[in-house]
This record gives sequence, structure tokens and C-alpha cells, in this order.
Amino acid sequence: MLKLYCAPYTISTVVVIALNEGVHWEPIRIDLAGGEQTREPYLSLNPKGRVPVLITPEGPLTETGAILEYLGETALPDLVPADPLHRARMREVMYYLASTMHVNHAHMRRGTRWADQESSIVDMKAKVPETMAASCAYVEGLMTGPYLFGHEPTLADFYLYTITTWLAGDGVEIANYPKLAVFKAAMEARASVRKAIADGYFG
Amino acid sequence: MLKLYCAPYTISTVVVIALNEGVHWEPIRIDLAGGEQTREPYLSLNPKGRVPVLITPEGPLTETGAILEYLGETALPDLVPADPLHRARMREVMYYLASTMHVNHAHMRRGTRWADQESSIVDMKAKVPETMAASCAYVEGLMTGPYLFGHEPTLADFYLYTITTWLAGDGVEIANYPKLAVFKAAMEARASVRKAIADGYFG
Repeated sequence: MLKLYCAPYTISTVVVIALNEGVHWEPIRIDLAGGEQTREPYLSLNPKGRVPVLITPEGPLTETGAILEYLGETALPDLVPADPLHRARMREVMYYLASTMHVNHAHMRRGTRWADQESSIVDMKAKVPETMAASCAYVEGLMTGPYLFGHEPTLADFYLYTITTWLAGDGVEIANYPKLAVFKAAMEARASVRKAIADGYFG
Repeated sequence: MLKLYCAPYTISTVVVIALNEGVHWEPIRIDLAGGEQTREPYLSLNPKGRVPVLITPEGPLTETGAILEYLGETALPDLVPADPLHRARMREVMYYLASTMHVNHAHMRRGTRWADQESSIVDMKAKVPETMAASCAYVEGLMTGPYLFGHEPTLADFYLYTITTWLAGDGVEIANYPKLAVFKAAMEARASVRKAIADGYFG
């Protein structure tokens, strides 16, 4: 059985809800506030000291986007478009979320990754509403509705959904992005997401 | 014929060297210093105002990782491992490079993406040698040699190579990472990389 090292409020929830779509799996919750991810034995699983880590039959696998693709290939083929260009569009969103939108968000609470002075951390936090609003506007422009690419979700929708749950804390009003608001509601009608909410992954 | 909007010294060079591995393509160089990427007609191709953009038969495609996967599926199958777990390992590196190592580097020259005060920008620059050294240590630990995964490159190697060309400017001495130094030399023995160097993509 697949095991996932994860923690509420983090990007690992992307994998939680994807797994809930139809994989037999078991969560192993990590105490991030207590620093469990920065000590052994966790560091031997993931020297980066982050979540998620998926324990596959061949060993630990990290990086949310890579884990999603692995699940798409091995267990959840319905979440991967059959057409190469449609797959490319899905990956275009996934890489944007990983390298830009999640990074914008991370400057709200993880600014010490990139700067040391308290004044810099405060400055970074103050800019997050602006950068996350720009990311929302970009994603809003891509979205067909109710999901990113029409009436069925792909791997990218699970990634995006989790990030939308952070918007209020990032100072962004999702109602300003009507398609994104419809998307969030559509995701929350899915059993996979309802179960993750009931299990406390979103607080 | 595929066309690529690109610029020297940027992550678009990843796609340049991958295309040089065996695709008939044409570069369209963008004047980044002149702000061409922030104006029409470029913004209609990519509202994010960044490079690269690959012009496919079905329209423009952005995000380096997504473009690499598209090329792997449509034109360069030898750069994609046949085994699902090996593919997952390749993607694990690609997502790490996109979301962590490239982002660490970006705080050297693109700090205004995430903060406004001059003191914050200075603070961010000062931390880049530390964050890029940590990224080098992580990648060094993954590498089999001479390439990331043995004796043949995958899509991930083209991504990593381009980032290694930034290390000196980021205050990191590649000689401290012997496998990474061997990797860089192995890539620079490839005709695809030699052609990109001759064509001025690395300065």
C-alpha cells in the first residue's frame, strides 16, 4: 500500500486529494511545527526536509508534480489527458503552480528561505497579495470551467485547488475571480476533497 | 517547423539545447533588456511576460518543464526513460529545479518579483550563494554520473546544465561539487551544447 508523508495546510494536500480519488493509501502525518521534517529519520527519506514524500514500492519519491505524474501513470489514468497537447497544457499549469504561484505564496510565511533581515521578511509578506492576485488573474484567463480544462479534472486541478484554499490568508478575495470561485466549489463537491476536509487537511 | 522565443542567459536555453539534440527548429530572440517580453505582440503569446515560448502546430506553449515533456513525447523520445519510476525520478529533479533551484537563483537578479524595498533586494542577493550551495549539495547527492542517471542524459540533464552555467555568478564554486563538475564537462562535450555556446546563448 502506498504511504504518504504529509501535513495539513501544506502542498502535500494536493497528493492527499489525488490519492483520495481512488488509491488505497495510508497517511503518515509529520509534525511540521515541531520540526520533525528537519530531523532523522525523516531527512533520510527526503534530505530537502519538506513534504510530501510518497513511499512507492521502489522507494521514496518527492516533489508534488512528480508524484502526481507517477500516480497518473500507475493508478489514476483518468486524470491524465490522452492527447499530447492537452497533456502539455496540463503540465504547463502544473509547472506554473510549482514555480510561480506556490513560490509567490511561500513569501508570506517562508521568507527566511530567501532573506535574513526582519525588514525583508515584512516587505515580502506585504507583496504577497499583489503577486497572488496576478497569479489568480493568469489562472482565471486559462480556465475553461468548471475545471481548468472543461468538465473533467486533470492532475493540475488538484494542485490548483489546494492553492486556492490559501488565498484568503494571502489577502486575495476569490470572488474577484469568478471562474476560480466556480472551480473551487466544483472541487469541493468531489468526495475526494470532502474527505480531505473532514480529515482536517485544510484546518 | 517549431519556433522558440528565447533569450541568452535565461532558462529558455534549456529548450535551445534540447532542441539542438535533433529537432528542426528556428529561434526568435527576444530583447529582454529592452522589455520586449512585457509588450505586445509578445504578451498575447505569453501573458506571463517570460521566456521560453515554444510555438507548436497547435499554438504557443510555455513553462520549461512542460515544453521539455512535450518535446520528449513528440520528437525526442530517447531523452525520456522507458521505466515509470525512472521517469518519476527525472520529473522529481525537473520539479526541484523549477520550483527551488531556479527560484533560489532568481533572488539574485529578480528580487523585485517578491519585495519592493532596496534593502530587501540587497538582502536577497546576499543569501543566494548559501541557497544555491544547498541546491548544489542536494543535486550532487542525487547524481550517478556522468549524467544525473548514468551514462545517457534525460530531459532533466538539459535543465540542470543551464542552471550550472549560472553558478559562478551566484557565488558558488562548482569545483566544490565534483560530480556536478564532471556532469557539466560531459554536457559541454555534446554537440547540442557546443552549438548553443557558439550561438551565444551562454554569453
